[in-house]
Amino acid sequence: MEPLGRRRWIIAEGYIPSESTGFDAAMISHETVCLLNTGDEDAHVRLTIFFADREPVGPYCVTVPARRTRHLRFNALEAPMRIPRDTDYSSLIESDVPIVAQHTRLDSRQPPHAVLTTMAFPVD
Amino acid sequence: MEPLGRRRWIIAEGYIPSESTGFDAAMISHETVCLLNTGDEDAHVRLTIFFADREPVGPYCVTVPARRTRHLRFNALEAPMRIPRDTDYSSLIESDVPIVAQHTRLDSRQPPHAVLTTMAFPVD
Amino acid sequence: MEPLGRRRWIIAEGYIPSESTGFDAAMISHETVCLLNTGDEDAHVRLTIFFADREPVGPYCVTVPARRTRHLRFNALEAPMRIPRDTDYSSLIESDVPIVAQHTRLDSRQPPHAVLTTMAFPVD
Amino acid sequence: MEPLGRRRWIIAEGYIPSESTGFDAAMISHETVCLLNTGDEDAHVRLTIFFADREPVGPYCVTVPARRTRHLRFNALEAPMRIPRDTDYSSLIESDVPIVAQHTRLDSRQPPHAVLTTMAFPVD
Repeated sequence: MEPLGRRRWIIAEGYIPSESTGFDAAMISHETVCLLNTGDEDAHVRLTIFFADREPVGPYCVTVPARRTRHLRFNALEAPMRIPRDTDYSSLIESDVPIVAQHTRLDSRQPPHAVLTTMAFPVD
Repeated sequence: MEPLGRRRWIIAEGYIPSESTGFDAAMISHETVCLLNTGDEDAHVRLTIFFADREPVGPYCVTVPARRTRHLRFNALEAPMRIPRDTDYSSLIESDVPIVAQHTRLDSRQPPHAVLTTMAFPVD
Repeated sequence: MEPLGRRRWIIAEGYIPSESTGFDAAMISHETVCLLNTGDEDAHVRLTIFFADREPVGPYCVTVPARRTRHLRFNALEAPMRIPRDTDYSSLIESDVPIVAQHTRLDSRQPPHAVLTTMAFPVD
Repeated sequence: MEPLGRRRWIIAEGYIPSESTGFDAAMISHETVCLLNTGDEDAHVRLTIFFADREPVGPYCVTVPARRTRHLRFNALEAPMRIPRDTDYSSLIESDVPIVAQHTRLDSRQPPHAVLTTMAFPVD
């Protein structure tokens, strides 16, 4: 398979609500970046998180194996720093091979939940 | 009419909830790819589904007739394999003529339902 | 002001629910295409609607005046034909000057309502 | 860091509901443009707001500091004019350095709230 997409993507929106009313892990308020690597080599991905009032934090390093998707929750990022809740952020996604990135949020502050999505913006 | 769009598209997000509370078929939790073929020749479309922990599955073959739209539910795909519910996936859409692809989800795990959409990402 | 955007856009998704529970016109289930004309000449826009099982219908002709936005409800289109409810469709938007097109749906089949949006896809 | 993105963006959709049922500022019905400046120089951003039935208003001038994100609520814009509620509008975003812009709405006219997002459309 051929690697498809771009090497650098940006998601300008970012906000993880601290509250949830969900009944299980799937219903915890969360933000996700869905990464697809169609190629035959693993994608080594570095995320940098930008904030409104402090220097960017990163890189967060993840691997998307060859011919795999990875739906990565921003909630789950721990090193170099957990992403604070109820806080505006943006993210830059850099990969050593072409990938495709899509942004999703599930917001369960009030039941039932609300959802949103958009393709990330390619910047290379 | 002229064929408009691109031949290859990617949707990085994919997730069909197993639960629904809807009262009829329109309200079953589902994911759809909407395909428009504006041209005068039928579009022969092949979908490949990527997963987090197994090799891609496909092709799923569908036709979008000339000058027609087709809103294809991922839920309805049966061969070569039904797409598992509550499972992260991504999709690659390949057509022999230019088309346009848009992604939609209706999530009715809790009433009322939530919806999301985005254009797919063109990769040719 | 300079005309900005593109002359042809596609929205592959289209579906107007026949049911609503809203309390006023703003809450009727509807689909909208938002058209912005930043330029100093009026934009003459032609919409063509594509269906799953019949020939395309159109053109629907609308004007977006110079330096104006127009949020056009598909529900309101009457000639050459009202768009049937509960029916899959797609739309092609053609303008004689560059414009920008964005797609929105408000779905109030069950209270409260759900919303979705995406930029249309530029095809010139 | 390198400035990434584009200098001009358009959001064709715009509508701030006058009603809210939220319990705090985060739950007031609002529209936001999320702006990311990855570069090492401040971005000086000018917004112009377009309406259906009057001349455009602007510029609204904001700064996005170097290496920062700014999630700007349209609700908060006051000069040269507060944006009227329950009114269709569109926005043009112009920056002196490349940025990325994403559009979000939270609609809490009825509890619970609904959300939508899309990348803005780059026009340079």
